[in-house]
Amino acid sequence: MIDSLIEKIQEKKNPTVAGLDPKLDYLPEEMVKKAFDEYGETFKGAAEAIFEFNKTLIDALYDIVPAVKPQSAYYEMYGIDGIECLKKTINYAKEKGLYVILDAKRGDIGATSEAYAKAYLGKTDIGEKQEPAFDADSLTVNPYLGTDGVQPFVEQCLKFGKSIFALVKTSNKSSGEIQDLISGGKPIYEHMAELVKGWGMDNFGKYGYTQVGAVVGATYPEQAEVLRRVMPHTYFLVPGYGAQGGKAEDVAKSFNGDGLGAIVNASRSIMCAYKKNGGEVGQAARDEAIRMRDDIMSAVGAV
Amino acid sequence: MIDSLIEKIQEKKNPTVAGLDPKLDYLPEEMVKKAFDEYGETFKGAAEAIFEFNKTLIDALYDIVPAVKPQSAYYEMYGIDGIECLKKTINYAKEKGLYVILDAKRGDIGATSEAYAKAYLGKTDIGEKQEPAFDADSLTVNPYLGTDGVQPFVEQCLKFGKSIFALVKTSNKSSGEIQDLISGGKPIYEHMAELVKGWGMDNFGKYGYTQVGAVVGATYPEQAEVLRRVMPHTYFLVPGYGAQGGKAEDVAKSFNGDGLGAIVNASRSIMCAYKKNGGEVGQAARDEAIRMRDDIMSAVGAV
Repeated sequence: MIDSLIEKIQEKKNPTVAGLDPKLDYLPEEMVKKAFDEYGETFKGAAEAIFEFNKTLIDALYDIVPAVKPQSAYYEMYGIDGIECLKKTINYAKEKGLYVILDAKRGDIGATSEAYAKAYLGKTDIGEKQEPAFDADSLTVNPYLGTDGVQPFVEQCLKFGKSIFALVKTSNKSSGEIQDLISGGKPIYEHMAELVKGWGMDNFGKYGYTQVGAVVGATYPEQAEVLRRVMPHTYFLVPGYGAQGGKAEDVAKSFNGDGLGAIVNASRSIMCAYKKNGGEVGQAARDEAIRMRDDIMSAVGAV
Repeated sequence: MIDSLIEKIQEKKNPTVAGLDPKLDYLPEEMVKKAFDEYGETFKGAAEAIFEFNKTLIDALYDIVPAVKPQSAYYEMYGIDGIECLKKTINYAKEKGLYVILDAKRGDIGATSEAYAKAYLGKTDIGEKQEPAFDADSLTVNPYLGTDGVQPFVEQCLKFGKSIFALVKTSNKSSGEIQDLISGGKPIYEHMAELVKGWGMDNFGKYGYTQVGAVVGATYPEQAEVLRRVMPHTYFLVPGYGAQGGKAEDVAKSFNGDGLGAIVNASRSIMCAYKKNGGEVGQAARDEAIRMRDDIMSAVGAV
C-alpha cells in the first residue's frame, strides 16, 4: 500500500528514499578484499561484499529514512549470486521496517506482466500453494506497452497491498526523444500521465493517493509542475536529485501543498558519501541522508 | 552478431524462433509430479520440472529451428531457482547450436542499462577478471528512455558480438495507446523506428543487417509494412503469430524480398502442441514447429 509508505514518510518526517545501486567500485576496498579472500574473485565474493555494504547502509539509515530502492540491474550483473544478494537485501530492509521499492522497470504484454507482477509483488502458484518470490513492497514499471501490460501489476498491488511507480518522465538526458514528442497539443509524457491516472482510479488509499505512482525526474522541474497538476492523487518517485543535477527547489515541484505526493531518491551521493566526506561508510551515509532530508524539507515544507 | 542468427536461419531454412515461456500449467502433469516428488512443492521443484521440459523441447527442435527465446518473467517468478533454470536453459540451448534471444525487455538510464547489458550480453568486472553472468546471444530492450538508455546495450553488442531487439510496435491490444499517437504527422512507433535505425547505423553485418533489431508485432501487419520500409537494414523479431492471432500472410510483411529481415516467434502453440494434438511433448512440438516453418516459408519465399 502507498499508505504504508506515506506513514513511514510522516513518521520519519523525511520524503526521501536511499537508492541501493552497489557497484563494486562504490565499496570500501577492504570490504571487497575481505569477501574476495574468503570466496575468491567470484560473483559469490562480489555478492557477499555487496550484502555487507548494504547491511551497513541499512543499519545506519533505517531509523531516519522511510524507504530504500535497490536497483535490480546492479544485482543481476553478478548473476545468481547477485540476485540472491538482492533478495537478502529486500528481506533485511523489510525486517528493519523500511519500505522497499524495487527498481526493475519491468513491463511486457499481459500474461508476461502477470508473471513479473507475481515474481516481485505477489505470489507464484506452486502446486497447491502460493509462494512469494521476491516480495518487494513496490516495483517500478515501464508502461510503453499500454494498459494491458500494466493491469496485471495493478491487480497484484490490490491483492497484496503493494504499489507500483510507472515511468512517465525519466530523469536522463535523452528522455525527451520519445517522451517530449507532441501529440494532440500535449507531450507524450502527459498522455502517459493520463493513462497512469486512469490505472489508479479504483484504488485510493486513506491519504487520497492511489497505488499506482509515477516516476518523474528531478531534472525536469517544469514538466514535474505540469505533471503534478495532471495527476493530483498520484505519488511521484523522483530520481535525479544530487549526482544527476536535480536540486531541492526542483524536486519541490513534485510535491503537493501538504508536503506529501513525492519521494525523492538519491543513490550515489549517500552510498559514496564516505569517499567524498571521509569517515565510516555508515556514518557518512547517515550524515548525507540527514543533509538531504533537511535540504528537501526546507524546500518542501512540513510533511 | 545478427550474422550468426542469419546463418542459422539460412542453414535450417527456417525464419522462426521457439519461445520458451514455461508456465507450470504447460508441462505434462507427470513431469511436474516427478519433480515435486523429488524436491517438494517448491520453487526448486518447479525449476527442475521446467528445465526438464525445456530440454525435451530443445532436443526435439534444435536441428530444425535456428533460435529459442526464453521469456525471463516465467523464470523470475520462481525466484532464484527459476533464474538458475533460465541460466541452465540458455547454456543448454547454446550447446545445441541454437541462437538464444533472451526476452527480458530491459532498459534504464545509461549507467544502469550498462549493468543490464553486461549482465545479459557482455561481461561483468570482478576484481582483475571479467566474467559473463547470463551470456545470451541477444536481448530485447525497452527504449522508452531514449538513446542514452540504449547505447550501453549497443556497446556490449559490438564488443561481444551480440544483438538486441528494441520494442517498436508491440503485439498486444493496448500497444496503440502510446505507440500509435501521432506526432509531427507520424505515429510514435515510427519515431521509435527512426531512433532504432540510427542506433544501428555504425554496425552493419555482412548480410547488410545491423546488430540493433526491432520488435514488431505480427498482429499489426499494416504497421509492419510501413516499418519494413523505414528500417530496411533492421532485423525484426515478430511476436504474435499463432496463439495471439497473427497469420503467415501478416508476418510476411515483416520480411524483405530475399526472405531475410525477420524472425517469427511462437511460444504456446509449440510448447503445448502435445495438449492440442496428442503425442509426446517433443514430437508434438517438432511437428508444430515444422508446420509453422512451412506455413511461414510458403508466405515469405526462399530464405
